[in-house]
Amino acid sequence: MTTASVILAHPYEKSFNHAIFQRCIESLKRLGCRVYAHDLYAEGFDPVMPRSELGKMETTDPLVRRYAAEMLESSLLVYVHPNWWGHPPAMMTGYIDRIFRPPYAYDYDEAKEGDPGTGKLGGKVGIVFNTGNTAADREEERFHDPLETEWTNCLFGFCGMARSDRRLFRIVADSTKEQRELWLDEVEATLRSHAVSL
Amino acid sequence: MTTASVILAHPYEKSFNHAIFQRCIESLKRLGCRVYAHDLYAEGFDPVMPRSELGKMETTDPLVRRYAAEMLESSLLVYVHPNWWGHPPAMMTGYIDRIFRPPYAYDYDEAKEGDPGTGKLGGKVGIVFNTGNTAADREEERFHDPLETEWTNCLFGFCGMARSDRRLFRIVADSTKEQRELWLDEVEATLRSHAVSL
Repeated sequence: MTTASVILAHPYEKSFNHAIFQRCIESLKRLGCRVYAHDLYAEGFDPVMPRSELGKMETTDPLVRRYAAEMLESSLLVYVHPNWWGHPPAMMTGYIDRIFRPPYAYDYDEAKEGDPGTGKLGGKVGIVFNTGNTAADREEERFHDPLETEWTNCLFGFCGMARSDRRLFRIVADSTKEQRELWLDEVEATLRSHAVSL
Repeated sequence: MTTASVILAHPYEKSFNHAIFQRCIESLKRLGCRVYAHDLYAEGFDPVMPRSELGKMETTDPLVRRYAAEMLESSLLVYVHPNWWGHPPAMMTGYIDRIFRPPYAYDYDEAKEGDPGTGKLGGKVGIVFNTGNTAADREEERFHDPLETEWTNCLFGFCGMARSDRRLFRIVADSTKEQRELWLDEVEATLRSHAVSL
């Protein structure tokens, strides 16, 4: 049985991000996956990395331990959040800072000077669903879509995940109900195409 | 008298980021500026944007009010933080999410459908000091330095700031004391070059 983790960061429980999150859970269950799902706002996750987590020291935060263990157990890692200024909301950047760290997502040898680290998420598939309110041409020409760089090159690439996918749904603020339904179908189709090959 | 704001996000009070922050404060005072300075970790800032701040509603958080008022009062805005995965630490992304919002950093007309907003930081100068542990060639070729895009194009550009500057000091982990002293001198020189023309 394939195990999947779905992580959401959005402050409003009626947001389109929440609809995507729910659709992810339903789709993955329909595909026969075991699903871990976390709404970081609802669970009161603390995104502030404390000084004690700067190096390789194990965390004492039970939520961080749980999220990290589930990430390592899952083959499919799904992240849902809006694009705010080219970064994820602090709730998700803090998730990244605290979960994508040694010894979970990668590790390095303290005895080897300058060891850049070795990814520990090899074989997993990473999927990101983002929402935005900036037109595509403006996003790509002026802002260069920094979230694509961050997730695909920095995070997934560095941690050894060879396969990843990302969808940026826009412009959500102006969208019709029909458009949003089509986007949710795209969410399900994206998950299906990856889950069947795991 | 020129007013400047300096904002820091780093969890370790003996970090090089703290040394940069201190040098900013000293340099700006030597230049005769009035200085507002905030160590977000030390002040216990909450980086999680609540649902009530999604639109244009005024915040009820006294720290957010204070930081926003000081930003608007300052001609020189200085941000100090490490590069973590191509984004600022959650403490700084949350500062951005909660302070760079309407009606402070920009505003939009709710009556005009699709109004992208008008920047309210025109005339100010934005300066960013970042630290990193990734070699320059790897950062630029593989990761495309998303922090440059985020600060310069997304934030400063959108909010109407025509002039900005950014220094990324690297590789801090391997640096000598002499190198770090030179970097701190560069911090002071950068601030001086902008402050004299304000």
